[in-house]
Amino acid sequence: MNQLYSYELLYTFTKTVFLKMGCSELDATTATTVLLSADLRGIDSHGVARLSGYIRLWEVGRINTTPNIQVVHETPSTAVVDGDSGLGLVVAPFAMQIAIEKAKQVGTGWVSVRNTNHFGIAGYHAMMALKHSMIGMAMTNASALVAPTFSIERMLGTNPIAVAIPAGEQPPFVADMATTTAANGKLEILQRKNAEAPLGWVQDKEGQASTDANILKQAGALLPLGSDREHGSHKGYALGAIVDIFSAILSGGSYGPWAPPFPAYVPMPENMPGKGLGHFLGAMRIDAFRSQEEFTLHMDNWIKRFRNAKPAPGQDRVLIPGDPEREYEQERMEKGIPIVASVVDDLKAVGEKFGIPWMA
Amino acid sequence: MNQLYSYELLYTFTKTVFLKMGCSELDATTATTVLLSADLRGIDSHGVARLSGYIRLWEVGRINTTPNIQVVHETPSTAVVDGDSGLGLVVAPFAMQIAIEKAKQVGTGWVSVRNTNHFGIAGYHAMMALKHSMIGMAMTNASALVAPTFSIERMLGTNPIAVAIPAGEQPPFVADMATTTAANGKLEILQRKNAEAPLGWVQDKEGQASTDANILKQAGALLPLGSDREHGSHKGYALGAIVDIFSAILSGGSYGPWAPPFPAYVPMPENMPGKGLGHFLGAMRIDAFRSQEEFTLHMDNWIKRFRNAKPAPGQDRVLIPGDPEREYEQERMEKGIPIVASVVDDLKAVGEKFGIPWMA
Repeated sequence: MNQLYSYELLYTFTKTVFLKMGCSELDATTATTVLLSADLRGIDSHGVARLSGYIRLWEVGRINTTPNIQVVHETPSTAVVDGDSGLGLVVAPFAMQIAIEKAKQVGTGWVSVRNTNHFGIAGYHAMMALKHSMIGMAMTNASALVAPTFSIERMLGTNPIAVAIPAGEQPPFVADMATTTAANGKLEILQRKNAEAPLGWVQDKEGQASTDANILKQAGALLPLGSDREHGSHKGYALGAIVDIFSAILSGGSYGPWAPPFPAYVPMPENMPGKGLGHFLGAMRIDAFRSQEEFTLHMDNWIKRFRNAKPAPGQDRVLIPGDPEREYEQERMEKGIPIVASVVDDLKAVGEKFGIPWMA
Repeated sequence: MNQLYSYELLYTFTKTVFLKMGCSELDATTATTVLLSADLRGIDSHGVARLSGYIRLWEVGRINTTPNIQVVHETPSTAVVDGDSGLGLVVAPFAMQIAIEKAKQVGTGWVSVRNTNHFGIAGYHAMMALKHSMIGMAMTNASALVAPTFSIERMLGTNPIAVAIPAGEQPPFVADMATTTAANGKLEILQRKNAEAPLGWVQDKEGQASTDANILKQAGALLPLGSDREHGSHKGYALGAIVDIFSAILSGGSYGPWAPPFPAYVPMPENMPGKGLGHFLGAMRIDAFRSQEEFTLHMDNWIKRFRNAKPAPGQDRVLIPGDPEREYEQERMEKGIPIVASVVDDLKAVGEKFGIPWMA
C-alpha cells in the first residue's frame, strides 16, 4: 500500500522546490498547481513523479526559471508565444490566458507556443476555459517514442489532446488523452510491477508485436491509438501528427523526431528545426455560438443521456469523459494522494538537494 | 472486375439527378463535385453509392433542395448556420466559405451548423481551406451506430474528423477519419464479399466481440477507435462525443442517439432535441501564426522526414495522411472510377426514375 500525503503538504514541498529553482512566487504557485493537478486527478505519471525530471532539465540549462515569455505574433483570434525555455507548467497557462482573452474579444482564441517544455497534464490547461463559460483545448508535442503506422522509427511523442466543455448542473466534459493506445505512464506502472503489457501497446525494434513493458529501452516504440493498421492505427498516427504540426510547426518549435527529449541525460537531437517543444491552446466562447442557457440545457441533457446508456453485461455504468479523474480528485483531496515508494525516495533526494525537509 | 466509368460521365449523370430533384444550377454543381470527390478519393461508400439514399430522403421530405441557408448568429471569428434541411453537400461548403472569410478577417473562423444532412466526405470541406493558405477542419455527427465504451447502446455516429494542412513542394497533409476503429463503409464492403470482420470492429447486441459483418442488422454496434477499454476505446468514444457536441450542441442540431438516421425508411427519433444533423467547420490562416514561407519550408521538411521514416520489415514505405486518397484520385481521374454492379443497378434505377439515360 502506497503512503498517502496530503495535497497541502505536497503543495508546500513542491512550491518550495520551484522557488529554490529560482521561479518567482507567482510562477512557483502556477507550476505547483499545474503539476499537482495530475496527482489529484489520478494521472500519477505526470505529477510529482516528474519533479526530479524537471529539476534535471533545469540543472543542464534546458529550463529557464526566469523566462521572458512573449507574444511574438498575433491577429485578433490568434497568437504565437515564445516561452523562452520556461517551464511548460508556466508557459502554457500564460498562453491559455491569451487564448481566453482573445475569445472574449472575437469569439475564439488560438495560441501556438514554441520554445517551451513539458506542461504537465493537457487537461489542466483546457479546463482553464471552463470558468469563463468557454470550451478549452490543449495539446502538446513531446519526446519521440511513437512509431507511425508501417514504421519502426520513433517519430512522434504521445502528443495528448485535451478538450474541456462546460455543462450546467452536470460536471464538465473533460477528455484528456494521449494519441497512443496507452500513455507512457501506463507502461511505467507495468514496469514497476514487473508485469507484461497487453498486445497492441508497443512493438519491438523490428516492428513485431511485443508484450514487454520495458521494450522502449530496447529501441521499441509505443503504438498510435488503434495499435495496428487493421484497427485504425493510421488514425492515431494522424492525430499525433496534427498535434505535432499545430504545436510546433505553426509556432516555430522543434517537431517530430527532433522534439527535445524529457530525460536530461538524453542528448538533444542534432539539427533541430525549431526551438524547444510546442503547445497549442484554444478557447471558444459558448455564447459566440449559442446562448449560454440553451447550450447548458442541452449539454446537461447530453451528459445525462450518455450516463444512462445501457451498460454492457458486467459493467455498472457508462462514463462521461472526465468522470474518473473527477472522482480521483474528490477522493484524493479528502484522503490524500498515494505516492509509490520509489517516487518518495526521489522526492526525499530532491528535498536533501535543496535543504527542504521532507514530510514525515 | 468492376466496370470503370469516367468522372465526366458520372458527373453529368449525377448533376442531372440533382437538377431533377430541384437543386439550382449552382447547388447541383456543388453537390455533384462534393459527392464525387469521395469516388475519386477511393472512399466508395460516400460517393455515388449514396445518391439513391439522398433521393429517398428527398422523397420523404427530409431534404429540401431549395433551402434558405442562413447565418443565425455570429461574432468576428464564429457563426452558426441553419441549413434549412438542405443537402449537407451544399450546406457544408456554404458554412466552410464563411469560416474562410472570417479567417481572412481575424485569423480563424469556426462555424457550427444545424438543420443539415449528410455532407459526403469530411475531407472535401477541410480541403477547401488549402487554396487560401489556411488549415481546414471539418466534422459532422451522423446516425447512431456506435456504442460508447462499456455500453451496448448505439449512441453516436461514426462522426468523422478531417484536417487539411497546406505544404509547399509537397502535397498537403489531409487526414479524414471516422472516430471508430472502422468506418461503416468498410463493413459494407465485407458484407458484399460475404467476409468476416476483424475482431475489434463491432460487437453484438450483448456487447460480445463479434466478427459478423452484418451484426449491425441484429442490434450490434460499431466500436469507437481503440476497440476496447484496454486498447483505448474510451479515447475514440471521447473523440466521437466531441464531434457530436461541436457539431450539434453548439449549433442546435439533434445529437447522440437522436441524430436523424440516413436510411429514409428508419423513422425519425422521437423527442428530437434539435434540428437535423450538425457539422462543425474551421479555418485557420497560416500567416495568422507564422510567415507563409517559414511554415511551408517546415511543413515540407516534416512531410519528407516522415516519408523517410524507417519502414517496418515487409513494408515499402511510411505514408503521410492523404497519400492513398491522392493516389486514388490521380488514377481514377485518368482511368475511370470502378463502380460495383449493385451500385450500377441502383444508379440505373435512379436514371429510369428521372428519365435520364444511363451511361452505356
